[in-house]
Amino acid sequence: MDTSANPAKHALPKKEDILLAFERISDYVKQTPVLTCNTLNQLSGASLLFKCENFQKGGAFKYRGATNAILRLSAAQASRGVCTHSSGNHAQALALAAQNQGIDAHIVMPDNAPEVKVNAVRGYNGKITYCEPTLEARESTLEKIQQETGAEFIHPYNNVNVIEGQATCFFEFLQQTETKPDYVITPLGGGGLLSGTLLTARYFSPKTRIIGAEPLMANDAWQSLRAGTFIPSDNPQTIADGLKTSLGTITWPLIRDNVHDILTVSEESIVNAMFWVWERMKIVIEPSAAVPLAAVLENSAMFQGKRVAIIFSGGNVDLKKLPWIS
Amino acid sequence: MDTSANPAKHALPKKEDILLAFERISDYVKQTPVLTCNTLNQLSGASLLFKCENFQKGGAFKYRGATNAILRLSAAQASRGVCTHSSGNHAQALALAAQNQGIDAHIVMPDNAPEVKVNAVRGYNGKITYCEPTLEARESTLEKIQQETGAEFIHPYNNVNVIEGQATCFFEFLQQTETKPDYVITPLGGGGLLSGTLLTARYFSPKTRIIGAEPLMANDAWQSLRAGTFIPSDNPQTIADGLKTSLGTITWPLIRDNVHDILTVSEESIVNAMFWVWERMKIVIEPSAAVPLAAVLENSAMFQGKRVAIIFSGGNVDLKKLPWIS
Repeated sequence: MDTSANPAKHALPKKEDILLAFERISDYVKQTPVLTCNTLNQLSGASLLFKCENFQKGGAFKYRGATNAILRLSAAQASRGVCTHSSGNHAQALALAAQNQGIDAHIVMPDNAPEVKVNAVRGYNGKITYCEPTLEARESTLEKIQQETGAEFIHPYNNVNVIEGQATCFFEFLQQTETKPDYVITPLGGGGLLSGTLLTARYFSPKTRIIGAEPLMANDAWQSLRAGTFIPSDNPQTIADGLKTSLGTITWPLIRDNVHDILTVSEESIVNAMFWVWERMKIVIEPSAAVPLAAVLENSAMFQGKRVAIIFSGGNVDLKKLPWIS
Repeated sequence: MDTSANPAKHALPKKEDILLAFERISDYVKQTPVLTCNTLNQLSGASLLFKCENFQKGGAFKYRGATNAILRLSAAQASRGVCTHSSGNHAQALALAAQNQGIDAHIVMPDNAPEVKVNAVRGYNGKITYCEPTLEARESTLEKIQQETGAEFIHPYNNVNVIEGQATCFFEFLQQTETKPDYVITPLGGGGLLSGTLLTARYFSPKTRIIGAEPLMANDAWQSLRAGTFIPSDNPQTIADGLKTSLGTITWPLIRDNVHDILTVSEESIVNAMFWVWERMKIVIEPSAAVPLAAVLENSAMFQGKRVAIIFSGGNVDLKKLPWIS
């Protein structure tokens, strides 16, 4: 388990904290639309509401957590900048959020990171340090940066301020819609978005059942929930590259104790769901974002006639490499 | 010139007609969003407002004109259905609009039409009749259908009721935004959308300059405007497949007398603009829809600091064949 963030540092966000976070980041994040699609309603038999964080700044919900975590820093902390290790959406989000607050973001990336992701971080003026693609190299490189700069480490998900920021996504959804959903389904990787969603549901929509959706090929959370004990992921291979990470010391117990269920889906289902969304909704979502819709389509009996909110977590795709074009 | 519709049949829409059309179709069409994009504003130096008809039902603005034309029929006419020849967005739009009004749509398509377009029309219960891919075959097949069924021919653009429907797109834009734009740029093929936009501007935003954007490879309207006389397109080859058609007897004089200018763009610019939109805005637009943005990016000095409305005309793309993937 990733223990690099200290869970005892802060308590979990309370109701008031989520309200404050929503206020705090409101001038910086986009209010993303909630879209519907007749074709997908017909296909699923459910009433689907898509919260489109693929339109969020930086192309993913991660910008909420990154912005909240940075705004939570003291002036002294902020002046020393922030740092993280990631080659994914959190790296882009932290770099952009730091740029927008006028502070430095140091990003540790593996030296085999895809060029499109490196360019995105560089485009937001992130200061990239490359390391070998191993856990040891990543952590030692990050530690060196922290020692040299005093930058605050913002973990991608095992950080209560990040989780508090992600909680604003479902909170915003509730402000935008009149009837509370029967279900919310989020993609599930490290568990930051799911944890935030669980907290918002607890305080503001307690009858809504919250489900995490995971690739079958990276089903560590599903396994953990069934076993009742944390089981880390072991170098999983899935097209949903944002969902390869294991849960953290903060997200695992929160999910274990609060989630309604975890559903797993095949790689083929993920690609099919992604294609449906591009073709019928005319929007670009990344494979990880398609996992909840894949879960609905694979388990349609469960959602018949239900009002189901789905969080489209992001839209950062290498458009030159699409899974349906070989 | 396509003279298959009779321009004298109805007069051009007046101010009141556009208001009535907007009311008439409001229960059937989607109010599509107006989106902005910081990256594209920075890139162009203009303030760009994108009217997203790629999210319209049927995937294109064509649904507005088709719906208006059908709702303009008498009950007796409607009972006999509608017909058209098209392998593009108008075919889909007319089939869907007819389905939604519970009447038949007969669509004449060339027997070499792409499968993805045939399937779309079929998906909306359009009654397809195939013909050889020649103008003669198309017209004789359509005439035969009209004789057999009494169906009303709804021309893709050379029809005042269709133009009146397309006029609601810019009208809706004006309802959604506070400050009137300095420019509106529409794609320009047969001229239905541009004609409707010119009429709306005349009545509701007379200081706004309206521009048509055309592929250099299908620049018949640009040539016609420069020559002051109608010059038909001659089997043009462009990736913007919706813009290959020539102007009509109704659209040509309207455009000639009212358009501020026509700008032409290279094929490379079209693909680049399309890619920017997909990558940065996370939305799917078709090549034809990217032509106005390409025109802004190719002529950025003209639009510096200006408020420019761009109509993203449609999002119907074969996702398995993308121009940036060979």
